This record gives sequence, C-alpha cells and structure tokens, in this order.
Amino acid sequence: MSKLTDVPKRILIGRALRSDRLGETLLPKRIALPVFASDPLSSVAYAPGEVLLVLSIAGVSAYHFSPWIAVAVVVLMFTVVASYRQNVHAYPSGGGDYEVANTNLGPKAGLTVASALLVDYVLTVAVSISSGVENLGSAVPFFVEHKVLCAIGIIVLLTLMNLRGVRESGKLFAIPTYVFVVGVFLMIAWGAYRGLVLDDTMRAPTADLEIKPEHQGLAGFALVFLLLRAFSSGCAALTGVEAISNGVPAFRKPKSRNAATTLALMGFLAVTMFCGIIGLAMATKVRMAENPAVDLVRDGTPVGDSYVQNPVISQVAAAVFGDGTFFFVVLAAATALVLFLAANTAYNGFPLLGSILAQDRYLPRQLHTRGDRLAFSNGIVLLAGAAVLLVWIYGADSTRLIQLYIVGVFVSFTLSQTGMVRHWNRHLRTEKDPAKRRHMVRSRAINTFGAFFTGLVLIVVLITKFTHGAWVALLGMVIFYATMTAIRKHYDRVAAEIAAPDGPSDDVVRPSRVHSVVLISRIHRPTLRALAYAKLMRSHTLEALSVNVDPTETKALQEEWTRRGIDVPLKVLDSPYREVTRPVIEYVKGLRKESPRDAVSVIIPEYVVGHWYEHLLHNQSALRLKGRLLFTPGVMVTSVPYQLESSEVAKRRARKRQDWSAPGSVRRGPAHDRTKESSKNSAKESSDSKESSGSKG
Amino acid sequence: MSKLTDVPKRILIGRALRSDRLGETLLPKRIALPVFASDPLSSVAYAPGEVLLVLSIAGVSAYHFSPWIAVAVVVLMFTVVASYRQNVHAYPSGGGDYEVANTNLGPKAGLTVASALLVDYVLTVAVSISSGVENLGSAVPFFVEHKVLCAIGIIVLLTLMNLRGVRESGKLFAIPTYVFVVGVFLMIAWGAYRGLVLDDTMRAPTADLEIKPEHQGLAGFALVFLLLRAFSSGCAALTGVEAISNGVPAFRKPKSRNAATTLALMGFLAVTMFCGIIGLAMATKVRMAENPAVDLVRDGTPVGDSYVQNPVISQVAAAVFGDGTFFFVVLAAATALVLFLAANTAYNGFPLLGSILAQDRYLPRQLHTRGDRLAFSNGIVLLAGAAVLLVWIYGADSTRLIQLYIVGVFVSFTLSQTGMVRHWNRHLRTEKDPAKRRHMVRSRAINTFGAFFTGLVLIVVLITKFTHGAWVALLGMVIFYATMTAIRKHYDRVAAEIAAPDGPSDDVVRPSRVHSVVLISRIHRPTLRALAYAKLMRSHTLEALSVNVDPTETKALQEEWTRRGIDVPLKVLDSPYREVTRPVIEYVKGLRKESPRDAVSVIIPEYVVGHWYEHLLHNQSALRLKGRLLFTPGVMVTSVPYQLESSEVAKRRARKRQDWSAPGSVRRGPAHDRTKESSKNSAKESSDSKESSGSKG
Repeated sequence: MSKLTDVPKRILIGRALRSDRLGETLLPKRIALPVFASDPLSSVAYAPGEVLLVLSIAGVSAYHFSPWIAVAVVVLMFTVVASYRQNVHAYPSGGGDYEVANTNLGPKAGLTVASALLVDYVLTVAVSISSGVENLGSAVPFFVEHKVLCAIGIIVLLTLMNLRGVRESGKLFAIPTYVFVVGVFLMIAWGAYRGLVLDDTMRAPTADLEIKPEHQGLAGFALVFLLLRAFSSGCAALTGVEAISNGVPAFRKPKSRNAATTLALMGFLAVTMFCGIIGLAMATKVRMAENPAVDLVRDGTPVGDSYVQNPVISQVAAAVFGDGTFFFVVLAAATALVLFLAANTAYNGFPLLGSILAQDRYLPRQLHTRGDRLAFSNGIVLLAGAAVLLVWIYGADSTRLIQLYIVGVFVSFTLSQTGMVRHWNRHLRTEKDPAKRRHMVRSRAINTFGAFFTGLVLIVVLITKFTHGAWVALLGMVIFYATMTAIRKHYDRVAAEIAAPDGPSDDVVRPSRVHSVVLISRIHRPTLRALAYAKLMRSHTLEALSVNVDPTETKALQEEWTRRGIDVPLKVLDSPYREVTRPVIEYVKGLRKESPRDAVSVIIPEYVVGHWYEHLLHNQSALRLKGRLLFTPGVMVTSVPYQLESSEVAKRRARKRQDWSAPGSVRRGPAHDRTKESSKNSAKESSDSKESSGSKG
Repeated sequence: MSKLTDVPKRILIGRALRSDRLGETLLPKRIALPVFASDPLSSVAYAPGEVLLVLSIAGVSAYHFSPWIAVAVVVLMFTVVASYRQNVHAYPSGGGDYEVANTNLGPKAGLTVASALLVDYVLTVAVSISSGVENLGSAVPFFVEHKVLCAIGIIVLLTLMNLRGVRESGKLFAIPTYVFVVGVFLMIAWGAYRGLVLDDTMRAPTADLEIKPEHQGLAGFALVFLLLRAFSSGCAALTGVEAISNGVPAFRKPKSRNAATTLALMGFLAVTMFCGIIGLAMATKVRMAENPAVDLVRDGTPVGDSYVQNPVISQVAAAVFGDGTFFFVVLAAATALVLFLAANTAYNGFPLLGSILAQDRYLPRQLHTRGDRLAFSNGIVLLAGAAVLLVWIYGADSTRLIQLYIVGVFVSFTLSQTGMVRHWNRHLRTEKDPAKRRHMVRSRAINTFGAFFTGLVLIVVLITKFTHGAWVALLGMVIFYATMTAIRKHYDRVAAEIAAPDGPSDDVVRPSRVHSVVLISRIHRPTLRALAYAKLMRSHTLEALSVNVDPTETKALQEEWTRRGIDVPLKVLDSPYREVTRPVIEYVKGLRKESPRDAVSVIIPEYVVGHWYEHLLHNQSALRLKGRLLFTPGVMVTSVPYQLESSEVAKRRARKRQDWSAPGSVRRGPAHDRTKESSKNSAKESSDSKESSGSKG
C-alpha cells in the first residue's frame, strides 16, 4: 500500500527527505564553525569596550590593568573550552548543559540551567542587536540617531523571518562570519605592522579626549572590586561557547571529535581577537567612559549629551584603516551582520531547548514534535517580545544590557561542569580499564577546575553586577523556573488521573449500545452526506434531530423530509428562546439518563470553507455545540465535513505551511539520528540516573 | 422521557421559562413608555440648544425665529407620530422600518434602511453619552473637564454591562425617565408661574453675555438656509420615535392599540418639553454660540477658551430653580441618566435589528438565534468601538456629533413611509369593504404626508449638514450596505453549491463501507474509552494508529498493547521529522486511494479541561489534525472526550453563560409570539411581496 501512495506524496510534498538521505545535511567543520561560533565570536565586538569602560571609572591610569584582565578572560576561555570538550565527548546526543545537569544533579538543577539558558537567549537577542546597531552607527550615523527604533525594527525583521521559517543555511552564516574573522585579523596584523614595523602613530578618534575619573585614586578593596567588575564585563566574550555542546548531532562523523576540534578552534579565534583588539585599543589610545557625556573631556569641557561613543572595534578600525575607508566600512558592516546572526542563534536555540524541555514535560508537549509551526511561533514571539521590551527599557544601550547578561551563562556553566564531575565520579566507580580510568581522571580534573573557576566567576558577577541589572536576569530565571514547574505538575496530575488501570482493558466501564443522532438544520448536500455516513456506521439506533428555531422553516423541513422519503426518523426539539445549543444538550442528557449504559454519538454536518471570514459566517452554532457536548459524559461528537469550493484555498495554504521548516533545524541535526543516540545514551545512563535520582530525591 | 429529565433540568438551569409563562414579561403601557421613550424624550436635553446655537450665527436677534422653528419641529413630530401609528397597526410583528421597506419597496430599500439604522445606533450612543456628560458637568465640573475620558469610560461601562448580559428591567428605565419628565414639567410649570404670575425676572447664567454674530444682517437665501439648518438641528428631537414600531410584540394585548397609544403619549410629552424649554430659554435669555470662546462676549471681551457652555436645559434649570439648588442637581442627574439609558437603547436595538437581518442572511446566521452570546458580543463590541472612535475624534462634543446624526433617522423615516403608501395602495386594490377602504385611504393620506414631509426634511438635512459631518454618516451607511450585500452574496453562493439534488436522497454518491481508525499516543483511560466506543460503532474494519515520534515511547506502547491483549490491530506510522499531522493525513489519503468508495472514520481521544491555559497544554496536536482532516474528502472525524476533573470548572462556567440574557430581550417580547405573528403576517403578505419583488427585481 505504501508503494501506491508514494507517488502522489512525492508530488504533493516535494522534499520529504528520507532518513538515509538526511546524512547530506550534516555539517562539515568549516561550516559548523560559523554556524555555532557567530555568537561567541561576535561578542569581541563589545566585550573589550566594556572592560575599558569599567576601568575608566578609576581614570585613564586604570587602563594599564586591561592586559591583565584580558589574560584572566583568556584563561577562563581556555578553561571553559577545555571543559566543554569533555561534555561533547561524554554527551554526544547534544543534550547540552540541561541534559548534563538534569542527569547528574537531578531535575531541579536541570530546570535551573534551562531557566538560565532561556533568559540568556532573550539577552543574546537584546545585546547583539543593540551592539550591532551601534556598530552600524559608527559607519552610518542614522542608526545611532534612531537606535531604539532601528534595534526594534531589526528584531521584528528577524522574528518575521523566523516565523516564516527561513531554512537556516550554513553558507548564510559562513560568509559574514569569515569576513568578520578575516577582517579583524587583518586589522590586528596591519595595526601591528604599522605600529611595530613602520612605527606609525595610530590615534583613535577619541585619543585626544581626557577621562574625568568618577573615583580618583581607587585603591585596596575598591580597586579590586573595580577590576573584578571589569573582568565580569569582559566575560561577555564567553557567551555562546556552550552552543556547540547542544549541536553535536549536526556534525559529520566522528561527531564528538569534530565538535571538540571546532570548539578548540573557536576558543582560539575568540581569545586572539579579544586580546588583539584590547592591545590595539591601548596602542591607539581609545578612550571610553561609562557616562561619556560628563566624564569624557575635550579641551577642559565635557563632550556633552550629543556625543556618541562608538564601539572599541570601530574606533580601532578607524585608527588602523582610517575613518570612513573601504576596510573600515566593510568591517563595520561585517561586525553588525555577525551580531545579527548571533541574535538569530537565539531564535534557533530556543525551539531546540524547548523541544528537549517539552520531552520532559516542562513545556507543552507539542513543542517536542518538529515542524509544529504554531508552537514554535509562540516561542519565537515570546522571545522577541521579551527582547523588544528589554531593548526599549534600556534604550538599546548595549552597555546597560550587558549588566544583565552573563549571569545566566555562568549559572549554566557552573552547574554543567559540576554535573560533569559527578558524571566522571560515577563512571570511575565502575570502570576497570586503567587507560580509560586515566582518561576519566584527567577529564574530571579539567571539569573540576572548570566548575570551580566558572563558579568563582558566577559569584564575582553576582556581587559586582547584582544592583547594576543582574537582578533582572535572576527574576527572569525565577519566572521561567516557576512556570515550567507548574506545567510539569499539571502534566503529572493529569497523567495520574488518566492512568489506565492494570489488567485487561475491559474493566473500563464499557457502554453496551450506541444511539446516533444526526443534527439537521435543513436538507442540503452536507446534511445528506452526514445522514449517509451515519447510516453506514450501523449504530444501534439512529435518528435525525432538528431544533425548531423558526416554525416556518421547521415545517418546510418536515415536509421535504417526507417528500424525499428519508428513512431516518426526524425529531424536532422546541426552542422557545430560539436557542440551538441548550435543547440539544438537554436532549442528549435525557438520552443518557434513560439508558445510562449507552453511549450517544452526535453527528454534525460541517461546511469547510477557505477563508477566516467565511468561517465566521458558518459553523458557529456547530462549534459552540461541539464545545458544550464535549463536557457531557458518554458522548462522542462526529464532524462530517463538506468541502465547499472555496476550501481549496485553505488546503493549498495548509500544504504550504506543512513544508515550513522550523528554525534551528540545521544545528539540530537529523531527528532520528538524534533520538537513536539519545536513547542509546539514556539506556547506558539509566542505572546511573536511577542511582543519582535516588540520592537526590 | 421528558418527565424524567425535567427535575434535574429545573435544578440545573433554574429559570427556564416555559412559553406560556412568558406572557408575564409583557410590558404594560406605563412601563413601555419609559422603555421605548427614553431615546426620543432624552433628546430634548440637547435639541433646543442646537436650535439656539445655529441661530446665534446670525446674532441674538435671530433668536426670535426660535418659536417658529419649534412649531416646525412640533408639526414634524405630530406627522411622524401619526405616520408610525399606521405602521404599528399594519405591522404588529415588530419588523419596524426595515420590514416595511423590505416588503414594500424591495430588498435594496430594506438594506438601505438597515444600514441607516445601524449608523444611527452608533450615533445614538455617541451623542447621548456626550450630552449626558455635558449635563453631569453642569452640576459637577469634573465631568466637563475630562469630557472625552468620562464619555469613553461610560461607554466602556455600558458595554461591559451589556456584555455581561444585564437583564433589561422595565423598572430600571421607568424611574429615571419619570423623574426626568416630571422634573422638566415641574420646571416649565414653576418657570411659567414665576414669570407670568409672580412676574419674577429669571435670568440664565449666560443672560449677561452678548453674542458676536458671525454673519451680521443675514437676509434672503442665506437667512433661509440658516433657519433650515436650525430646523435640521432641532429635528434631533425626533430620533428614536421609530423604536416602538420595532417593539410591538413586547406590549400587552391589544398590542397594536397599546403601542399606538404609547406612541401618541410619547409624542405629546416630547413636543411639550421641547417647546417648554425653548420658551423658558427665551424668557430667561439663554445665550448659546457655535464657537463660545470667541463669539460670546462679556463686557466687551470674548469669554475665551476656558469658558464652558452648559446645555440649555441646565441653564434654564439654573434660572428657574437657582444654580446648585436641590432641584437643579436632581434634574441634571436625571437628565444624564436618561441620556445614558437612551444610549443603552442602541445596545438593545442593535441585536434586535441584527437578528432580523440575520434571518434574511445579511448578517451571520447565528445572530438570529437568541442568547448567542458570542454573536451579540461581537455586535456590541463593534457598536461600542465605533462610538468610542467618534467620541474621541469629535472630542465628546455633542454639538459636533449631532451634525452626523439625523441623516440615518430620516432616511429610514422616508423609506418606511413611502413603503407604507405602497402597502395601502396594494391593499386598496383588493379590499371591498367601504368602511375598511375609508380607513385605509385615511392611513394612506397620513403616510403620504409623512413620506413627503420627512423626505423634505431629509433633503434639508443633507443640504445643510453635508459638509458639517453628514458625509461621515453616509459613508458609514455605504460601508454597512456593502458588507451586508457581500455577506448575502456569499450565503447565496454557498446555498446554490450545497443545494440538495431533487429526487430521493440516494443519488448522492454513498460510501459502501467505513474504515475506522483510532488515534493512539499512549495507553490511558481516554484512549481506552475511545477504543471501546470505536468497537461499539461496528464499522467494517477497525484499527489503532500511532505515530512513531519517539522510538522508545513507541516500543513501550507496542509492548503494553500486547501485554494488555487489546484485540484491535495497532499500526505504527514512521515520522522521520517527528511530525504527527502529516503521516496521519497521508495514511488516510492512502486508505481512500485504495478503496475510493469507502469512508474513513478517524476517532480521536480528547481531554476536556477547565481552564484556557490547560487547553494550551493539551489537544493541540489533535486540534491541528482535526483541522487538516476536515479538508480531506470522505473522512469523518470523531472526538471521544474524556472529562478531566478540572473540566467541572468549565462546565459550571458554560452553564452560567447559558443563563445569560441577551440585551434587548424585554423590548423584543417573547420569541414564539413574535415568530408566530411574523409568520402569520408574512403568509398574509406573501402574495404581495412576490408581486413587489417581481416589480423590483
């Protein structure tokens, strides 16, 4: 039979890829790098600036701490990359931080990680778009002049693209990302050449400005606090590193190894670019201030409110390439584009995480099935709405938004690494092979250091940024956590309520007969079809039912019924108030009362139309009635559709919708592959997880 | 059987009135008067002021024309009342102007009247509320200071009340209306006594002001035009007179005679109050101007923007009773209340007209059934939305809003009276009895004069007010007309498409067998129930169908299926993309392809939950699937509901909703009574209407 239906299916659906052909969509490393790295790489567009900005509070002299902060960020980056290389090998199913925390630390930790990641997706959109607009603005001032409007406009655009279901293409990511990376490296190389070899003096546009320190001569605890705050801001460079650990199934084989290599490459690129930009910024004397209007001073007077503080990367580019030159404009455009792609990452990551959470019943079940456009749409609109709100409240100011960022990332880093330590502990308990044991011990050491270091950073971030905005992110996490807990509780309660009793199914009270009722308003093709179908069903009794809303019409109906010799008895219900629903419900209840062991089947002829406004003109009473009948026990409700000509429109629309591809499908990898590995993995882990849940619960 | 179900029904539903008990809700004249007359009586609160206002354009000397204009309005009122007394006798079914125009002049005229009335309902709300706020403001200045806000607030309040379904109570109308009428008469009597007997000089608060005429020394055509405009404004007193002709079925017997008497009484009250107020305004030297800020002059200087022009009725009350006295405040409150009741009239009239239009398929069918809350709600929200828009655009200024008013009323007056002339002509052709003929000739003369006079006024209104705002009302009418025509066309097209072929019903291609498919996701009570019901239905073949979204879950399902020994074959569909809808649709299409003469019955277990947010968590895939299946020919879709505990909440809510009483039910009278008379009438008219539609179409 499946042979028979294959041809029309192929014609109708077009590109229903067969499972074995899915391999072709797997990502080679050269494409995987831009797909997964646009988020962490793009953060070098704002992270160096944030470091300088915080340091400027103690005056320009504090800038000499910046290399040390860069070193700290580099060490942290290497730690995190090394740690996640362990994750990627241990969890090739792509469950990511959520799965690691959930499996090893129990569901509460998993849910905490999930909440943190969800908040982070919102912030990734808000921060990246705001920063992208600022970078565009360094080349085209229009964008900074209408910052909030532009930022919200771009969010709306991205949202519409993702709602429409743009097929995420690896190449789309590759070109701007590579242009950006090559551009930054070119800038660093050219800057180093000019500075060190040609001995040019390159001066950033802000080099002539002086910084009025907000706190002169900070020392001791205050200075340490300031340095820690600068470090926290620099940690923005680490956001998005965890993305690869979610995307292992999308890599070509050997998946884990390729993913680990890509991760290392990404870490190397990110730290080089970060340090290069900081170095160039020092060399070209870039001046940044937290409140540029008052704290930046030109010839003795503050620059004032009209001053626009351009991002470090564009100031450095202006110094190295020259302001407004071809390279300067290309780099600004590539930077902005990469930042927008980074924002798009969140649009892809959200449904991915949502689908995993849905599988664990923390989110509505339908998020788990792919291509469920409606479910994804709701998620995307929620994400975009929250991002727009943040952008609007914070005036699309990336500096202020970054204060909220990072908390989520480090919550998830810390819990994930802690989970990995537990993971290795468990495996070490059973593993006998010395070579494998040695490997595990090494991995555990890396993850332990990772957990410790990221935990430390989390504490630093919380302390230095709590009042600056981190509390907003925490509040967001609490809201997500509470919502998901409530959803899970609801599903559990319902599951308990509907659980099938043990033993053969017949102990469910089973009705003995069916009484069928066909609802008739007048005689036309839809009702005749419903009658024909009802007769076919061979229920124990069958009658037609009409509600007397208009005596003239009812009389005409009865006459036509007789004239046509329809061999089903027609019963007419009186309705003094011209209602339809109530008399039918009462009648059905009466039937049930009469013979409680019987079931009632209500058959409703329905028109199928093509346009929403046509829908308003038909079926409204039927819909209402169906809604009410569902609450009546012992009733089943059957719709017999009659397709009007206009329904073709809706059919075509539905077909088009079906071909919609969910955002994030490229990085998610093929579905079957994923589930297979996941189930394999979960089978392997099953004894462990039982044990761990035992120790947790 | 009905005996058995009667008791729980009575307990559950409470007040399901039996048809024979409905007689008790019929209105005696003393209640019918305030119910139907609040609209026309309330207009004396603003109509006299509008006359003075327009006259003031030619300076205060033009005020001496006001008695003549009052006389013209009185003559018009008597004409209209006399004409409608004929309508009430000829059409006791309460069809009103729409029915009269439709039956006698053809459907286009009917639809024009309907459009005019719909626009008028919107304007009744806007004008009455704005004027009510102005009257309140004469006692409590806060209301005029926040005029737009208060007006919109009151509209919202009325809307919510009507959406909730306040049972329209005759007494609710009676008290404020009688207080208002008695108050105005008391004012007129006391004013006459003080002025004529005591020879007091009563001076209105504005008596000391001078009017700077916008056009000095108007004469000839310009003066005539101004007088006609003043007369047009005065005609606002006639709005709402036609309401009784819609409400005849709500009267006690003899319905037509009682309605005619009430109509006469209402006309008498309205003209007396109108003339009394105009007279008192002249005696107390009320000064009104179209642009009070510049045209009213106190001691040589214009009063300026801060000046608030109080309504004539409140100025007269201040002169007669004294500003701020007890009687003054009571009258102001009663005036405002009557105006709000007049606005409420539109909320009641709208569904009434909508129900009649729905019967003729110009509006969605479901408007025809009573108590269809959703349909009424949409209408009420539309009405309120349009009124709010107008109030907002025109700054809740009753004077500016009145420019839009009246056009609709006079369109409907004119067409209705013209229709009545045709009605009598037709009856005279067949009637032999000389006494009856004499009576008919008299009626025809009255209606002819009515048609002529109201037509003349319509032309005057159109000419004098077109640029002042009447074009907005006309535009509104065109929009309603076009929409209703489009709806009717759609219904006609669908009716032609689905018309049952002649001959016995069996010539509809009839499927020969039914293949039943039960959708299964996992085994629990809902699916077991669906299986049990499906077995009962004795279809020709039966199988269970599951979509393999998650291999682990599918395997568990298959194992449990075997373990429980369920005697229905379980088929599993593969879904490489974790979709649910597409594989099922393809499978069903395949079944149809295999045996095109068979029907497929898809049985879907459904949870019934109580809260909307629970609904988001369940049934989403089922709903989507049902939607898609309806477009697949030869399929019927059966929902087997499983009521979760929480569904009790929704059940209670639905029951509460069912007891909702539609606005306007008091004035509509009992449904059965109405339809019976209507069908009697339409049977009587059937030959006529055929004839008239023949001459029209």
